[in-house]
This record gives sequence, structure tokens and C-alpha cells, in this order.
Amino acid sequence: MEISIRPAREADMKDVHRLIRELAEFEREPEAVEVTEDQLREDGFGQNPKFQCFVAVSGDRIEGMALVYPRYSTWKGPAIHLEDLIVTEAARGKGVGSALLTRVIRHAADAGVRRVCWEVLDWNEPAIGFYESRGARVLRDWDVVQLDAAGIAAYLKEYESI
Amino acid sequence: MEISIRPAREADMKDVHRLIRELAEFEREPEAVEVTEDQLREDGFGQNPKFQCFVAVSGDRIEGMALVYPRYSTWKGPAIHLEDLIVTEAARGKGVGSALLTRVIRHAADAGVRRVCWEVLDWNEPAIGFYESRGARVLRDWDVVQLDAAGIAAYLKEYESI
Repeated sequence: MEISIRPAREADMKDVHRLIRELAEFEREPEAVEVTEDQLREDGFGQNPKFQCFVAVSGDRIEGMALVYPRYSTWKGPAIHLEDLIVTEAARGKGVGSALLTRVIRHAADAGVRRVCWEVLDWNEPAIGFYESRGARVLRDWDVVQLDAAGIAAYLKEYESI
Repeated sequence: MEISIRPAREADMKDVHRLIRELAEFEREPEAVEVTEDQLREDGFGQNPKFQCFVAVSGDRIEGMALVYPRYSTWKGPAIHLEDLIVTEAARGKGVGSALLTRVIRHAADAGVRRVCWEVLDWNEPAIGFYESRGARVLRDWDVVQLDAAGIAAYLKEYESI
């Protein structure tokens, strides 16, 4: 399988959205995807893009994608965050994920950042082993915290007036 | 203690940098802070600020700070990330952290995002309990992964040509 990695175009967002939904279904949370294909087009390709995306292409098929954006570390300065790296089930085990990760690290080096960060499920040992083999540190004592839309509204209602 | 929260000014970065270093010393990693006061000024107050910062002020003293920037969720769309929330040791237990967090959630609501996210040490039960009491979900099965400057260079040297 001949794979090439290139920056995503606006027209790729249909396939990118399909990959995002595929992953959410695999994680048994298909209804959690509130982002639409149109929103991806707007958010990624407007005046101030909110993310950059790379796609892995084989022939005319998009077999994978990596989506990144800048973050800021108060210790290291500007950083690049890898939000999603998704490979279609049919294309797994063929180096697509590795090629996408390499493209992301190149993007980070070109941007001059001193850190690339992402998140991993702590039971996903194959992924953790892969990342560690490539030099990444998995900070097992740091957890992710999220307050979602309903939580934001409830928080302000209860605490803002105090 | 009368505390007010306001957006940080460029001139506050001296105090903000002091708070960042205080936290790093508390976490026994003082040498990990590579960001300088000048870099905070440039990165936070240039043409395209890389972060927004709020400070907690008592009299003419800065007693705490919260530093945030946008992220992007492929499920929820634009999000706000809380990178640091720091309160000086002398001012703890007086509601400063809570007031800063409330300001951050207000900032997120004003920005129209559907998620606020941050990270917490998994053994920091008081912090976790506080966040959960305010409606946040602590995703204990997600870990943080980081590839730092030396890792980026080593990665590209070893894998980019494959």
C-alpha cells in the first residue's frame, strides 16, 4: 500500500468527519460527536484556523488523519497538541499511524516548539508501548479533567454570584 | 482579604513568572521552567497572543493567576484549556482559587465553547474533590503524553527518513 501524507484540504473534511465518527463508534460514544462536517470546514479553514490537519492518502482514499493545534506550556513555552490520530480499520498495521505521527513531529519542529503533547487511554498498552519506543513520556499520574457545556452553565448559575 | 480578579497586564508577567517558578519549586522541578518573564510578555501580549491570563489581586499584591488558551475537540469543537491555576501559599484557603476558576468558566462561556479542560495529579484528592464538586469529570483512564525538545530532535533523526 503506497501511502502519502499531506496537509488536509477543506474538501477532505467529509472523510475526516467520517474518521472521527468511526473512532467515536469504536469507543461506544457515537452520540458524543457534536461537531459537524461543516463546522470542521469553518473551524479549520477560516481566517484564523483553529486546527491543522494532515491526511494519509492511498490512491484516492483517505486512510487516516492527524489533527493538531498550538498549546502553551508555562514551563516550555509554545507547544503542539495532537488531538486525534486516526487510521481506518482496513489500513491498520501498515505504518500509516507511524507516518502520520512523524509528520506531526516534523510540523512541531518546523514550528519551533519545545513540546508535543497528546493523551492516551491508560489501558491501551500497545499505544503506550509505541509512544514510549519513540521517546515520549507517558505521565501516568496526570489525569484529564473536563467540564462540558451543561457543566459550564450549571457552574455559573451556582457559583458566579458568590 | 479583599480579592479582585482582572485580566493580566503585560506588567504583571513579573509576578506571574514568580508564581510559575514557585509552583515548579513546590513540585521539585525548578530547573524545568525554561520560559522567561520576557517570553511571557512576548507570547501573551503580541499580535497573536498565545494565551490569556487572569490575576487575583489583593491591595497591590498578585496572590494568584490562571492561564488559559483555546483548544479544539473533534467531538465538541472549540474548547478552553486551563493550563495553570496558582495561588501563593500565603493566600490559600481564602477562596482565591475558586474565584479564579469562576473567572475562567465565565471566560469560556463568553467565548461560546462547549468544554473547559485541564489536568490534575491523580493523587491530589483535595483538588479532584473540589473539581468534581463543581461538576467537572476527572477522566482517570486518560494519561498525558509528552515529547520534549530533545525527544523531538531524536525522533526526527531516527524515524523521518524511514
